[in-house]
Amino acid sequence: MVPSPARIGVSMPSLQHVLSVRQFDKARIDRLFARVREMRGIVKRGQCTILGNKLMGAVFYEASTRTRFSFEAAMLRLGGNVITTENAGAFSSATKGETLADSIKTLGCYLDLIILRHFDDGSAQIAAEVSTVPVINAGDGKGEHPTQALLDLFTIREERGDPSKLHVVFVGDLRHGRTVHSLARLLSMYDTRMSFVSPDALNLPDTLFQDLIAEGCEIREYVGLREVIESADVIYTTRVQKERLSGMEGVALDGSDYALTRELVACMKQGTIVMHPFPRNTEIPTWFDDDPRAAYFREIQNGLYVRMALLEELLNPFPE
Amino acid sequence: MVPSPARIGVSMPSLQHVLSVRQFDKARIDRLFARVREMRGIVKRGQCTILGNKLMGAVFYEASTRTRFSFEAAMLRLGGNVITTENAGAFSSATKGETLADSIKTLGCYLDLIILRHFDDGSAQIAAEVSTVPVINAGDGKGEHPTQALLDLFTIREERGDPSKLHVVFVGDLRHGRTVHSLARLLSMYDTRMSFVSPDALNLPDTLFQDLIAEGCEIREYVGLREVIESADVIYTTRVQKERLSGMEGVALDGSDYALTRELVACMKQGTIVMHPFPRNTEIPTWFDDDPRAAYFREIQNGLYVRMALLEELLNPFPE
Amino acid sequence: MVPSPARIGVSMPSLQHVLSVRQFDKARIDRLFARVREMRGIVKRGQCTILGNKLMGAVFYEASTRTRFSFEAAMLRLGGNVITTENAGAFSSATKGETLADSIKTLGCYLDLIILRHFDDGSAQIAAEVSTVPVINAGDGKGEHPTQALLDLFTIREERGDPSKLHVVFVGDLRHGRTVHSLARLLSMYDTRMSFVSPDALNLPDTLFQDLIAEGCEIREYVGLREVIESADVIYTTRVQKERLSGMEGVALDGSDYALTRELVACMKQGTIVMHPFPRNTEIPTWFDDDPRAAYFREIQNGLYVRMALLEELLNPFPE
Repeated sequence: MVPSPARIGVSMPSLQHVLSVRQFDKARIDRLFARVREMRGIVKRGQCTILGNKLMGAVFYEASTRTRFSFEAAMLRLGGNVITTENAGAFSSATKGETLADSIKTLGCYLDLIILRHFDDGSAQIAAEVSTVPVINAGDGKGEHPTQALLDLFTIREERGDPSKLHVVFVGDLRHGRTVHSLARLLSMYDTRMSFVSPDALNLPDTLFQDLIAEGCEIREYVGLREVIESADVIYTTRVQKERLSGMEGVALDGSDYALTRELVACMKQGTIVMHPFPRNTEIPTWFDDDPRAAYFREIQNGLYVRMALLEELLNPFPE
Repeated sequence: MVPSPARIGVSMPSLQHVLSVRQFDKARIDRLFARVREMRGIVKRGQCTILGNKLMGAVFYEASTRTRFSFEAAMLRLGGNVITTENAGAFSSATKGETLADSIKTLGCYLDLIILRHFDDGSAQIAAEVSTVPVINAGDGKGEHPTQALLDLFTIREERGDPSKLHVVFVGDLRHGRTVHSLARLLSMYDTRMSFVSPDALNLPDTLFQDLIAEGCEIREYVGLREVIESADVIYTTRVQKERLSGMEGVALDGSDYALTRELVACMKQGTIVMHPFPRNTEIPTWFDDDPRAAYFREIQNGLYVRMALLEELLNPFPE
Repeated sequence: MVPSPARIGVSMPSLQHVLSVRQFDKARIDRLFARVREMRGIVKRGQCTILGNKLMGAVFYEASTRTRFSFEAAMLRLGGNVITTENAGAFSSATKGETLADSIKTLGCYLDLIILRHFDDGSAQIAAEVSTVPVINAGDGKGEHPTQALLDLFTIREERGDPSKLHVVFVGDLRHGRTVHSLARLLSMYDTRMSFVSPDALNLPDTLFQDLIAEGCEIREYVGLREVIESADVIYTTRVQKERLSGMEGVALDGSDYALTRELVACMKQGTIVMHPFPRNTEIPTWFDDDPRAAYFREIQNGLYVRMALLEELLNPFPE
């Protein structure tokens, strides 16, 4: 389902769509992040008109207010306009029976760019194949959510620098955490040391684990956070995605093995940052929010800037 | 339910509302379409501010993402702003019990123009009678959907020229196809030759059939597409509107009598165009999409331009 | 749940949030209303860019199309941009379990201002305590809806002048009418004479009644409108908020005791105005709408101007 690099044009000068982190090599990431950094100042100055004549559609087949608001804010901050639905299934309701392909081709008659959120893996690829306008994958089922992985990587680089010198610890539900999978793939390009802490039932999928080893990454699995917290530079926490589980009701991640406690925080280095793709449950207690190492709201803020830079690249490409 | 011409001012210099195709005579259509053609260039140039100080409300009592996006894109492409709801029933929920008239009068306090989609026939007329701002009917139950008929007529004229010299074949569910009824009424002004192909249970309503004959139109009914396809200049296909049927589950339109097949396509003239108000089911196979005679995506695109021209006429009328 | 004046800064030069009518003393109201009056001209002239670089989020945990459209129109009329959801519960759905505080902190990363509608009393205060951007309370359960009370007061002052010289009659469901409670508190600052007409089961809450007496207000309760209509300067009618009642199905407010009849209207003074927070049921018959004393649509219109002035004050404060 994940498109191969050749197919979606990693080696091309400009991106046509954003479907998968596999489209991003180090050079492309460096160029993107240089622009992301400038977006902070653009938001602060206000009244930007970079995309003043462009129209984005937020086409969500399932509600995701957080992701939708982030994309819409990014477009509006760049001076563009937005049309939105969280009820895109009305296009393809049982009675009317329209295919995703027809819906996307129809939308291309009105819009300059489509942000697609869909419940089926591979939907973004199907959309991109027929679309007359750029498509950004804002999450397709258990598939990818590439902009989340990019904002995570941007946050790590802004806060801690060169990923090749870091030890990143992933903790929580590593089996279903779409953002964990995409970020780990990105970090594998930098030979980042990665540790994975989860209960057995929620371990990293085998295929991803094997892929990371094949890339030559230094990776290890642990059953409790206390085993690795002292050497961590980045702690990437996740919640149990209960809505994607079945028959695992017994699994709890709020014990001290997979959640931050005062005792564990005391073991963290001074410069270590704690990240989370949000929403959180009890993995991170709110008393930690005021700690400078709590990077998760800065991470959310970075999402705005990353999406701004991607929208600009797709709609108003740099001269090469 | 359909307003009489005198009541809604066909002879007036400017439109106040767009409620029914009956408001449009040939002169008004010519003037509108001249402006529609210019809208293509306005979209291409971008940064239009024609309606820069105007605010449109998309007030949908039932979801129709396709129609809503088309109107919203039209307004935003002209530089205007949009407020939207697909849940307008919240105005008149069972517990709060507000009338449509009160909702429309309230909205007129905030907005410059109302796009109304409602499930009840005649709602647009009720709204226009009390509204302090222009109303465009974006579909009222089994009533009218005049902007769809206008974009269909525009497509026919752009692609095939003078309707008085054409043979237009309607096929599918002609009983419930609101767009078929409105387009046939428009074409009757041009003495277009029209053929109607449908199963008996889905024939054109008798009153419309009699009206067309009274207008002096050359019309005939057929039971299969193959009987008329060779002489067709325009084939206007429709799907069975299953959500408006009851007890007709046995009717199938995907047989070769009412759907395009390779055999039927081979019988079509070179310049014939195939139209469809969308969404489609199996009436038109996707392999036909790349045929230059497949006009349905151009038809959707024209919907944007037609709605732009109507919004401009209502909000920023030409000097007479 | 209602914040104390000290806590939310009544004495501060600029408002940070709008949570409660208790934040507004007479001086602040005078300054606000002076600007409200200017907003009428700003809307008429169009093309305003006062808030051209600002982004408002309409974050509604329950649908309220009327209130949402009013705030969104206000922001767009000032040149700002808007992101919206009537499904904010998707932030905190049972499966994902996010707190309101986390949702608000997340939104602050994207937005310049949050309009919050929530079903729980006190939600606006909780939001304001964690928010990095201004919050306006657009109704929190049985709590407050301060902008409605301000637009009501503005209407009374515009139409009838100094509230200290007026007799304001409240009629209908005075127990559950959130707008009645807030407006009565505002009027108590002006020593307005107030009368309350309702069936026993829907009397003003005791605590509010005692508070008004403690403020030295001249107040009385009546069981029928005819007892006080002749001396009323303002008649503030309300509907039974059936959705907030339980076990009171027998109560009817459409008898002549609590609804306008031709006989009662004949008893009204010439300059008396009739107000209603809308939606209405049968308390006010539609034949009264054309009477110049029917002020309720002007009241709705004033809501636009009041919200414009509040948005400006929070986002673009006057130099002190």
